[in-house]
Amino acid sequence: MSQPDRNATYLLGHDIGGTKLAVTVADRDGKILHKIRRPTEAERGPRAVVASLADMSREAMAHATLSPAELAGVGVSCGGPLDTETGVVYAPPNLPGWDEVPLKAWLESALSLPVYVENDANASALAEWSFGAGRGCRHMVYMTMSTGIGGGIILDGRLFRGPNDTAGEVGHMTIVENGPACGCGKRGCLEALCSGPSIARRAREKARARPGSRMVDLAGGDPACITAETVMDAARQDDPAAREIVDETARYMAVGLGNIVNILNPEVIVIGTILVKAQDLLLEPIRAYLRRETWPRVYGTVRVVPAGLGDAVGDLAAIAVIRQAVQPEGSI
Amino acid sequence: MSQPDRNATYLLGHDIGGTKLAVTVADRDGKILHKIRRPTEAERGPRAVVASLADMSREAMAHATLSPAELAGVGVSCGGPLDTETGVVYAPPNLPGWDEVPLKAWLESALSLPVYVENDANASALAEWSFGAGRGCRHMVYMTMSTGIGGGIILDGRLFRGPNDTAGEVGHMTIVENGPACGCGKRGCLEALCSGPSIARRAREKARARPGSRMVDLAGGDPACITAETVMDAARQDDPAAREIVDETARYMAVGLGNIVNILNPEVIVIGTILVKAQDLLLEPIRAYLRRETWPRVYGTVRVVPAGLGDAVGDLAAIAVIRQAVQPEGSI
Repeated sequence: MSQPDRNATYLLGHDIGGTKLAVTVADRDGKILHKIRRPTEAERGPRAVVASLADMSREAMAHATLSPAELAGVGVSCGGPLDTETGVVYAPPNLPGWDEVPLKAWLESALSLPVYVENDANASALAEWSFGAGRGCRHMVYMTMSTGIGGGIILDGRLFRGPNDTAGEVGHMTIVENGPACGCGKRGCLEALCSGPSIARRAREKARARPGSRMVDLAGGDPACITAETVMDAARQDDPAAREIVDETARYMAVGLGNIVNILNPEVIVIGTILVKAQDLLLEPIRAYLRRETWPRVYGTVRVVPAGLGDAVGDLAAIAVIRQAVQPEGSI
Repeated sequence: MSQPDRNATYLLGHDIGGTKLAVTVADRDGKILHKIRRPTEAERGPRAVVASLADMSREAMAHATLSPAELAGVGVSCGGPLDTETGVVYAPPNLPGWDEVPLKAWLESALSLPVYVENDANASALAEWSFGAGRGCRHMVYMTMSTGIGGGIILDGRLFRGPNDTAGEVGHMTIVENGPACGCGKRGCLEALCSGPSIARRAREKARARPGSRMVDLAGGDPACITAETVMDAARQDDPAAREIVDETARYMAVGLGNIVNILNPEVIVIGTILVKAQDLLLEPIRAYLRRETWPRVYGTVRVVPAGLGDAVGDLAAIAVIRQAVQPEGSI
């Protein structure tokens, strides 16, 4: 594929999720001109999904009255593992049946535009750094805090991918020795303590051990139905057991953030999803515990903030991937 | 100060320790032409120490029959905290009475050469990466494992300092919740578990709880005299208590390395001092535990190796600082 036209004004983004596809046309400031969504129907296989993305791209360009020549290229945000050099996707958990899919090559051939593929956590990090809560800083760590805990790292104004696109797995730091089992096979990972399902699991255990918690009422009387959202709602109603779960969550998160800060000392840590929805409960306790995990000189340079893009992060993640690819080196 | 002469062949290094000063003349391959050592006598105050370094530099240049014009500049390795931009040193623990010392300005004025100041952990990381066990890689983490645990990080072929020269504090990751107290004021830091004094403390506790350990014999019959070296010697004689301390040490180190690997996925982790002296005991167990802390895809890209420079690291640390400063961007 030819080099991208670095001077072209517009960018095309493909967000490939397990349930939906989104194709977005935007300018370099992240202003969205047009957006199209369709179900992924991943079971149709990768070739059919790529054909859908190509159709959606042409449709989006037509709606925005843009020719391919006005586009710098295509950014793709997709579940990993994947290889950003070759653009091959290796069996993402949310796309069953996809194995060694040459996504970049297929899309470039279908669209005659240069394509850049990035895993969704790194792409979201780029989005928050380009357009969201991390805008303007040089060193940023992004963390999702949802079904899993993933991350992406911006250092010296560039995405840091590591030697084979595996940097940023912040969810699998060990926080508690011999702690609860994690989906990755380890024990005591940050994800096994602070992801949504992990918060719910800790809350269910507590509710069973200490009957009478408001969490059970909010879950319709069945402790098995407690979710992370139940915990946050009950904590807002001053339920002591829920408050304890929230406090524990903040403490574990702070240990994880402390490790990141002591190793990398980023200027900004942007945390998405649960922290955004429950920032009234979590943000100050996380900051207070983090202060204990670092020195004043280090703590003084880091800001912990909720993600800024909300539900737009997926669209802008794909746009941020192509923006970063065509941006002059070192510019923010 | 004028810009360094990037084409000059030779480099001058100043290693400022709490007890000794070393001035070294070397070429860009780290080949040492001449070296001079003197006691620091830090109590004379920073001005007197700088005067000594200037004298030693002139003496070393004379011995090596070099004129200042043949030198690219001076690299300084010194205890931190310090500011690499301004070259001001702020109260290093090993240099009592030094507070806001404008080391770079004083040395530049005394020697009429450009001076680059770096904290000793970062400088040692540069040395191992330029001349030692990390030579040729793009992403490397260096860890000391001695009286304390410090570190330095090379990413994409450059030293990563963070926004205010505080990145790389790998010794203060929390490894054990509510673990032993650390000198930094926290609990359960890697340093509070795996530094030399911390290994000795754990061993003394174990020896008191389980009388009859060979460690006590080797310490002259007094558990209070057990050192990290005693532990390693007793482990080599198959003392079960010492073996347990060694195994714990490897396990804690692997948790810390696992955090680093999951965040940064460096190609090489270089560990100095205790790991070098006790590599027969520690290296394989650390690698085996680390394998459990990561995925195969990630574990497969990282090599954990003992430091390669031994006692020469201090001299070469200072040389590596000036080498990095005058090396073309991005070259290794």
